[in-house]
Amino acid sequence: MRIARFITGENPQYGILDEETDELVVLRGDPIYGDLDTTGKRVPLDEVRLLSPVIPRSKVIGIGRNYADHAAEMGNEVPAEPLVFLKPNTSVIGPDDPIVLPAYSQNVHHEAELAVVISRLCKFVPREKAGDVIFGYTVANDVTARDVQSTDSQWTRAKGFDTSCPLGPYITIDLDVSDLAVRARVDGEIRQDGRTSDLVHKVPDLVAYVSSIFTLLPGDVILTGTPAGVGPIDVGQRVEVEVEGIGAFSNPVVRRD
Amino acid sequence: MRIARFITGENPQYGILDEETDELVVLRGDPIYGDLDTTGKRVPLDEVRLLSPVIPRSKVIGIGRNYADHAAEMGNEVPAEPLVFLKPNTSVIGPDDPIVLPAYSQNVHHEAELAVVISRLCKFVPREKAGDVIFGYTVANDVTARDVQSTDSQWTRAKGFDTSCPLGPYITIDLDVSDLAVRARVDGEIRQDGRTSDLVHKVPDLVAYVSSIFTLLPGDVILTGTPAGVGPIDVGQRVEVEVEGIGAFSNPVVRRD
Repeated sequence: MRIARFITGENPQYGILDEETDELVVLRGDPIYGDLDTTGKRVPLDEVRLLSPVIPRSKVIGIGRNYADHAAEMGNEVPAEPLVFLKPNTSVIGPDDPIVLPAYSQNVHHEAELAVVISRLCKFVPREKAGDVIFGYTVANDVTARDVQSTDSQWTRAKGFDTSCPLGPYITIDLDVSDLAVRARVDGEIRQDGRTSDLVHKVPDLVAYVSSIFTLLPGDVILTGTPAGVGPIDVGQRVEVEVEGIGAFSNPVVRRD
Repeated sequence: MRIARFITGENPQYGILDEETDELVVLRGDPIYGDLDTTGKRVPLDEVRLLSPVIPRSKVIGIGRNYADHAAEMGNEVPAEPLVFLKPNTSVIGPDDPIVLPAYSQNVHHEAELAVVISRLCKFVPREKAGDVIFGYTVANDVTARDVQSTDSQWTRAKGFDTSCPLGPYITIDLDVSDLAVRARVDGEIRQDGRTSDLVHKVPDLVAYVSSIFTLLPGDVILTGTPAGVGPIDVGQRVEVEVEGIGAFSNPVVRRD
């Protein structure tokens, strides 16, 4: 089942995708905080604007160097434990929203990733129970100012700026994420084409690890890392990210005057 | 004027400190999102439990190595630009709440700091206009797992864990922060005793810098860095942080079984 957050001109709403009719079955509220009660209304998918399927009330947690091929292309070792960083909720945008390149970077990269959406307040989640706190999965672009990432000791400027966390197009619940394609395309040309089976630290281990550091809140998002093939995006291009079983979405790239 | 968030057994409330009577004049709502309308009720300060004066809806922004004497004691240079990191809102606690040492660290340090509380949504704030987006100032303890800070490349585990951001006891508005004492005491013994006049990057510059990276939201908090004298805190101790003109508060130190 795939869930969207969308707008039709009024307030944001949530809907379940009916894959046979390409309609959204409208939900009464935010399914992360409630249930999947429907209003009875249906809206054609091509009449809505999709929004980021979740805006975290607390944090987006990133994981660095979690595919061996990507660690190698950056000249890094795979860390023995997950390499954890934070992106603020102000970095989140949705499908088709512009990625605004920060003035302080001349080398901004795409990073297509599988993202985990947390369902409830939790701490110290054992890896065997990780599924109990996962609402579903979405697709992320962990947009990274690569030049600043190597000159700043902390990755906050490189990975935390406004628009650096496109999320979308849906949250898929009950998805087996053990072997899914993860792809990025720039202007239609494939740049990243990995598989989640190559994740060094798997989703249950990541949930266990990060929940041993922080309390996780409903709607918190964990980015699971990016496969090889990262590269620059520039003004006028369109960057698409995709995870098999969830979907694809894209964002135009702009620079502020 | 000093504003507290507090609880008397029911829901959290906000109040203005009457310094002559040691009472809190109760406010109708959160003053960051509204005005300073009072309900007419007054509550003696010694009958309330003070809470962290703010819980950010988005982020706590930390600044590293912003006092030359602290950078030197850690064997670091003062960075030319502010060194920015993030602490999640789940790290915030209030006066008297226990600091829970994380199981993964054997060397957790206190860091007393002046903290800036943002009043409104803003981006690209010029340094001359920084005052327009500052609601007031509070006191922070940027609790840091020093061992993990040096072994992890990113400071997320070292500075982001639950209880790593005690804030309190008040937010002082209209405070001149150019030369205030910043102190930490462990079990009553003074450990840090600096002055904000020694801040390398001053508050207006920090607001300008961080707002060029992120949109700031009302209630976001900027920690301004810590002076020399940081050191370990351990189970059973009580650590107090103080900034002149705002106040002092303390937290007991515990470890989870």
